[in-house]
Amino acid sequence: MNYPKVIIAGAGFGGLAAAKALADKAVHVLVLDRANHHLFQPLLYQVASAALSPAQIAQPIRHILRRARNVTVSMTDILQVNPTRNQVITSDGAFPYDYLILATGATHSYFRHPEWEKDAPGLKSIEDALEIRRRMLLAFEEAEKTDDPATRQAALTFVVVGGGPTGVEMAGALGEIARYTMVRDFRRIDPSQARILLLDAAPRILPSFADSLSAKALRKLQAIGIEVRTGTKVEDVGGDGVKTPDEFIHSRTVIWAAGNAASPLGSQLGVEPDRAGRVRVNPDLTVPGYPNLYVIGDLANFSHQTGSPLPGVSPVAMQQGRHAARNILAQIQGRLTIPFHYFDKGSMATIGRRAAVADIRGLRFNGFLAWLAWLLVHLVFLIGFRNRVIVLLDWAWSYFNFYRGARLITNVAPRKAKP
Amino acid sequence: MNYPKVIIAGAGFGGLAAAKALADKAVHVLVLDRANHHLFQPLLYQVASAALSPAQIAQPIRHILRRARNVTVSMTDILQVNPTRNQVITSDGAFPYDYLILATGATHSYFRHPEWEKDAPGLKSIEDALEIRRRMLLAFEEAEKTDDPATRQAALTFVVVGGGPTGVEMAGALGEIARYTMVRDFRRIDPSQARILLLDAAPRILPSFADSLSAKALRKLQAIGIEVRTGTKVEDVGGDGVKTPDEFIHSRTVIWAAGNAASPLGSQLGVEPDRAGRVRVNPDLTVPGYPNLYVIGDLANFSHQTGSPLPGVSPVAMQQGRHAARNILAQIQGRLTIPFHYFDKGSMATIGRRAAVADIRGLRFNGFLAWLAWLLVHLVFLIGFRNRVIVLLDWAWSYFNFYRGARLITNVAPRKAKP
Repeated sequence: MNYPKVIIAGAGFGGLAAAKALADKAVHVLVLDRANHHLFQPLLYQVASAALSPAQIAQPIRHILRRARNVTVSMTDILQVNPTRNQVITSDGAFPYDYLILATGATHSYFRHPEWEKDAPGLKSIEDALEIRRRMLLAFEEAEKTDDPATRQAALTFVVVGGGPTGVEMAGALGEIARYTMVRDFRRIDPSQARILLLDAAPRILPSFADSLSAKALRKLQAIGIEVRTGTKVEDVGGDGVKTPDEFIHSRTVIWAAGNAASPLGSQLGVEPDRAGRVRVNPDLTVPGYPNLYVIGDLANFSHQTGSPLPGVSPVAMQQGRHAARNILAQIQGRLTIPFHYFDKGSMATIGRRAAVADIRGLRFNGFLAWLAWLLVHLVFLIGFRNRVIVLLDWAWSYFNFYRGARLITNVAPRKAKP
Repeated sequence: MNYPKVIIAGAGFGGLAAAKALADKAVHVLVLDRANHHLFQPLLYQVASAALSPAQIAQPIRHILRRARNVTVSMTDILQVNPTRNQVITSDGAFPYDYLILATGATHSYFRHPEWEKDAPGLKSIEDALEIRRRMLLAFEEAEKTDDPATRQAALTFVVVGGGPTGVEMAGALGEIARYTMVRDFRRIDPSQARILLLDAAPRILPSFADSLSAKALRKLQAIGIEVRTGTKVEDVGGDGVKTPDEFIHSRTVIWAAGNAASPLGSQLGVEPDRAGRVRVNPDLTVPGYPNLYVIGDLANFSHQTGSPLPGVSPVAMQQGRHAARNILAQIQGRLTIPFHYFDKGSMATIGRRAAVADIRGLRFNGFLAWLAWLLVHLVFLIGFRNRVIVLLDWAWSYFNFYRGARLITNVAPRKAKP
């Protein structure tokens, strides 16, 4: 049938929500993503810290959408968007569209220092998480092997740059690994002597939370031995450590959780992006001048509600995805589009075992109750029934045993076959 | 204390059994392995076929041995063994020993065609399994994308070379994926139209089993649509397929399960290795001329019991590992070593869902009962309580839903950060 063609570029939280909202409607939907899987990014730090396996927080996009017979999924690299010709250019050729939902998100930003990436990997994809896991585990192996005290200390020093939720969660998980999980596994080193530093240039961690919750999170991190250095700008990152205005921190494992840069596709639309590379969208989520082009999620700058851009979090992306889908269906039926309005359900961040901070529509709480709430929310939103059960089991097991099941170092040196 | 030093080179089934047998004895034990994990290799094909995650069949070696305070584990590359100077040379330097247990196993052999490896990966390590999983899943993605019928057919043609247990299990799993798991996920292709070929130069599959069980396995494979070509020699392997004497099979996914070559360390001991590169050991598992050097598992040629070498399977390795440990303790106490005797408990191989063949000390059976026995044995021997529970849950879930949870394509194209 000659239904209108909708392309959804990117199958993150926003793109997937849009695809689900368009399932079984009178449109042809094509979902494009360079990965074959949708990733539950809020738990990615659990893969990086060896608590969960990649398959527990990711599922094939085509499997998630298998029942929507009007939705086709293609794994491809999106190279360019041509909004005047209504085309998406990919590594597999050009795809025409009647409506486009651009949801390609954001990647790490190294503040004009791309050379830092190789020594300070970020945490956006499964590959990133496995690389961080590999480096962290190898650091303990190197510390056990070396006879040089300076080398050993650098191997046992872990620096997390960025005091947002990802950085706080990653630092908390590292603290737990060093102090509990690994503690009996080594003979020459004491893993609990590991130093974990959390650096941020801002005056406080978790700046998107209320002051009181920031302060509670800080105290909790300090209680589990994390050295938190706020107001500390990173001046340089190299293979041997991190330079700050005050000192050089010798470390062989640096994790980047600091900056976000919008997907480069946003700057190709012929409209001036904001300083973070995001597209300033109309109230109905379309791009000025292109009524059939929607931008949602981390790539969108939506400032109509509060005067400042909505944060780059999954609830914004999901609500915008559903809203863009509804507006497209309205346009097809000749109706007017409706302005987007974000319903903020709150935010939370966890700090190691049994502690979290939460701000649910002004209701602020922390400690064990907040941690239980965090657990519940993340389990409920995790995709797939099977994943929920297995992840819950893994969490329960590691909660009581301090065990982290996925402590595998892979991709070190490929084994060679014999002739 | 000045205990004798025992080095165990390789933490596979043999090395690990030896380390456990030497735990808390009056020796210093150093376990060397290039990986940080022990791998439950009999289930590796389940990782390659996206049913299990790597962490479900592998555990950190130092975690398995954490309670043995006299055992130190080091992750290192073993470069050379010098039996006259009693040294193991590694990428981290030389380690002296009083006793050495060499258990570095085997790798794939491409029958003097090492150039085939890039187009036909084998199945020995986690990295191998993830590479095969990636190629298999990408093949379905490519088939869905292409408009060219020949390209599509090649993408949907999977060739497994080698009709031993690994090849049979891999082919069976591929059949299941194509016919059940993926069947609703695609729009343009029908995954159940995939061709799966199992090639072997030998006249029958599973040559280590009785004729009757071979024949039953063959019929079962054919019943689930696998094309089995015995007596078929592979003449060439390339990126576009496999050449046999009869035809050229166009395929973009070839999996190598054919040959084994012993670890190169065996040929450095100054004794003439056998044709497969294995070390011919004395009845007590020592190497002729070196009473403090033991070789066990896939690297050993032990022919004293049946006249021909014992097979390269995990029960042989485990029994030899324990035996070598006992003989070393005897030598330390000034007692004589004891000849090894293999107790053969039987062998089994599974073919897809609900079918297997088993030969337990002459008791031959097949079908559902054999499959249940296979399941039980593999669960019992899988390391770690947690892994057993999670794997059982995953198996139960996929048994009832034909679901394979680990269908992730990773390491395709690394995402690049923005400057």
